[in-house]
Amino acid sequence: MKRGLFIVFEGPDRSGKSTQAGLLAAWLKKKGLKTVLTREPGGARISEAIREILLDPENKISPLTELLLYEAARAQHTADIIRPALKAGRIIISDRFTMATTAYQGYGRKLDLKMVATLNRIATAGLKPDLTIVFTMPDSEFFKRGRNLGSDRMERQDTAFRLRVNKAYSALAARPGSFRIDAAGSVEKIHAAITARLAARFGIAAK
Amino acid sequence: MKRGLFIVFEGPDRSGKSTQAGLLAAWLKKKGLKTVLTREPGGARISEAIREILLDPENKISPLTELLLYEAARAQHTADIIRPALKAGRIIISDRFTMATTAYQGYGRKLDLKMVATLNRIATAGLKPDLTIVFTMPDSEFFKRGRNLGSDRMERQDTAFRLRVNKAYSALAARPGSFRIDAAGSVEKIHAAITARLAARFGIAAK
Repeated sequence: MKRGLFIVFEGPDRSGKSTQAGLLAAWLKKKGLKTVLTREPGGARISEAIREILLDPENKISPLTELLLYEAARAQHTADIIRPALKAGRIIISDRFTMATTAYQGYGRKLDLKMVATLNRIATAGLKPDLTIVFTMPDSEFFKRGRNLGSDRMERQDTAFRLRVNKAYSALAARPGSFRIDAAGSVEKIHAAITARLAARFGIAAK
Repeated sequence: MKRGLFIVFEGPDRSGKSTQAGLLAAWLKKKGLKTVLTREPGGARISEAIREILLDPENKISPLTELLLYEAARAQHTADIIRPALKAGRIIISDRFTMATTAYQGYGRKLDLKMVATLNRIATAGLKPDLTIVFTMPDSEFFKRGRNLGSDRMERQDTAFRLRVNKAYSALAARPGSFRIDAAGSVEKIHAAITARLAARFGIAAK
């Protein structure tokens, strides 16, 4: 690989995406491939500071401010972590990227989708993932899993908001460049499906 | 006044704009006009948290992240403080607004000016000041005053950056909607010029 590979995991809370991102990173490393596992919002020092503001339940944040804060964290994360690693030929696995903003701030908060797309493009300077692995589940399953949600500011949002986000991911999983995963599968089966896809798509030996 | 009045003070550090913003607010209040004095980045609780990130000398922040953070703070400040006060018919005086972003992040950081304008428009949902009072000074004067600068992250920037900002304000002061103030004047003379302008422009009795 000359330019590295940028793989993003997306999906609603409790969909299993973070577990699978970790498993894939471990699998790639075992193969001797230089792999960086990162997450949004976060990664860079400043992004973690922004993450704290975003998740603090005491903060009253307007939807537009929330959007701009996520994009600010993304700009630093993209410039400091993702682009240099890609340039060095590494495989980057990011737990969430621009699709999360479309799902949460676009569909969830009902902000203008064109404006969200503009900001996604500005914050990343046009960088797009090579593959976005999108976890989806029916609303019934989403509700069942939602009972165990934490209490940070984003997890405390009302049901209607969280349902819009869940539906958004099902729609976004159909976009070109997305690989849909049914979150109901077992951890082993999902991991196998993902490694098979990487093998087929990027020529990484699947064995 | 039916919809209030939005007056912004702009200019480089140590140009005297904050002093004059305070004097104007006091003058208006003495006339019995309901006046709100605010500043950027700040005002709303969340904006003050963002301000802390921006001014902390320990933080390494990319120009794009810096821009997005200022816009995030502005979005909340505009929605929480400026728009409600304008709707209630108050006079808002803000120490800095969108022009500062054009000067510092556009001209100073050399970010694309069109992108800066796009973000200014998004963060404010298109709100424009009724009058922007812009303090300008020649570079020689700017250097003299700069010796007493503080040590927050923005004040520690290199000389070339700060010169670009100073020149930018001189250029921006020529834009429609701007009222240029020569920062070299005495505090009393500048205050008199500003109150005279408000009297002429908005029919506030000057006496």
